[in-house]
Amino acid sequence: MVTRTRKCTDKIPEPTLRRLPWYLSNAKLLKEKGEKYVSSTQISKEINIDASQIAKDLSYVNIAGRTRVGYEIELLIEVLEDFLGFTNIHRAYLFGVGSLGAALLQDSGLLHFGLEIVGAFDINPDLVGTSINGIPIYHSDEFEERMKLDRVNIGVLTVPINIAQEITDKMVDGGIKAVWNFTPFRIRVPEHIVVQNTSLYAHLAVMFNRLNETLKK
Amino acid sequence: MVTRTRKCTDKIPEPTLRRLPWYLSNAKLLKEKGEKYVSSTQISKEINIDASQIAKDLSYVNIAGRTRVGYEIELLIEVLEDFLGFTNIHRAYLFGVGSLGAALLQDSGLLHFGLEIVGAFDINPDLVGTSINGIPIYHSDEFEERMKLDRVNIGVLTVPINIAQEITDKMVDGGIKAVWNFTPFRIRVPEHIVVQNTSLYAHLAVMFNRLNETLKK
Repeated sequence: MVTRTRKCTDKIPEPTLRRLPWYLSNAKLLKEKGEKYVSSTQISKEINIDASQIAKDLSYVNIAGRTRVGYEIELLIEVLEDFLGFTNIHRAYLFGVGSLGAALLQDSGLLHFGLEIVGAFDINPDLVGTSINGIPIYHSDEFEERMKLDRVNIGVLTVPINIAQEITDKMVDGGIKAVWNFTPFRIRVPEHIVVQNTSLYAHLAVMFNRLNETLKK
Repeated sequence: MVTRTRKCTDKIPEPTLRRLPWYLSNAKLLKEKGEKYVSSTQISKEINIDASQIAKDLSYVNIAGRTRVGYEIELLIEVLEDFLGFTNIHRAYLFGVGSLGAALLQDSGLLHFGLEIVGAFDINPDLVGTSINGIPIYHSDEFEERMKLDRVNIGVLTVPINIAQEITDKMVDGGIKAVWNFTPFRIRVPEHIVVQNTSLYAHLAVMFNRLNETLKK
């Protein structure tokens, strides 16, 4: 018996999207161990999420679970990687080659998950004209010209907070469709522009606070 | 008139903790512009969050707003930085000096927000004994010995997913109290251990999905 429960056209909720990579990494581990099939109950035991939640989450993805045996692992990996966008290469620019920006340029892992940073922008004369990890650094003034050649959709924002909004506006004017915002600044964008906030510092704040609570006990 | 609405002993909700850095960066910008006071209504206009929500969030922090003028900016910055743990240095180890791990060692910005990585662990003989950005890289076997000297509370997890759980268990056994998990693997820990998940890849997945939706339109 094969079950397919949901049309892929539904907008997938963000919590589901955040959990899918957990199922993917779990499936990869099981594949390494030589397993062929996995059920939502098995995944549930491994990662401590309700099996019904897992089945519901996976119903957004175009994969059929088979009664008793579950999902075919190889197929599950393939479908999840594809669904999550990790198999397509998404070209991006990075704005602001400071400490964090330079660090992200160094992280080749992003490419394995579908993000290729094809260029970076800064105004520091020591950086402009050089490259990091093979990625050229251009002067910020060259952005509009480069956009015509490279046609990227994604901008990674790692500038100081005092210019975060200004650079965002320039990115959007130049045709950027999605901003991956690493600054702790809440940027404003037109409605059709995607913003993904990843403030390491906000995560640090949460961690410090929780840690202090446990240390007090 | 001075208003103080909440005891600091209440457990602060995570969404509040995530918003506080936005208010902090906003206050820093206003200070740069020479402003002395800011009201929650002003912050609200800048970052598009309800003024009542901002006032509620700030009630968790030990700061008093004054009727009509609002919060004293310099004090607000000081109190927020202190509250968020950015003024204390929290010592940490990093586990797994791969692409992302090495990138994080390069990011001196973490130190400005209170996280000092004092050592890293790996098993790669090309890395052990070297250092990145002044941070020494030790062999993973040295962890327990080092812990006795360094007494850190935080472990940054940047290992491959197939050893994420094993390394987490070792960290916890060695006395680590909080794990900053950058892997896309859902680690399990005893109840008293803090876990902060920051999967760049999960964030990428969300961004790709939303971007694809807007590009289809």
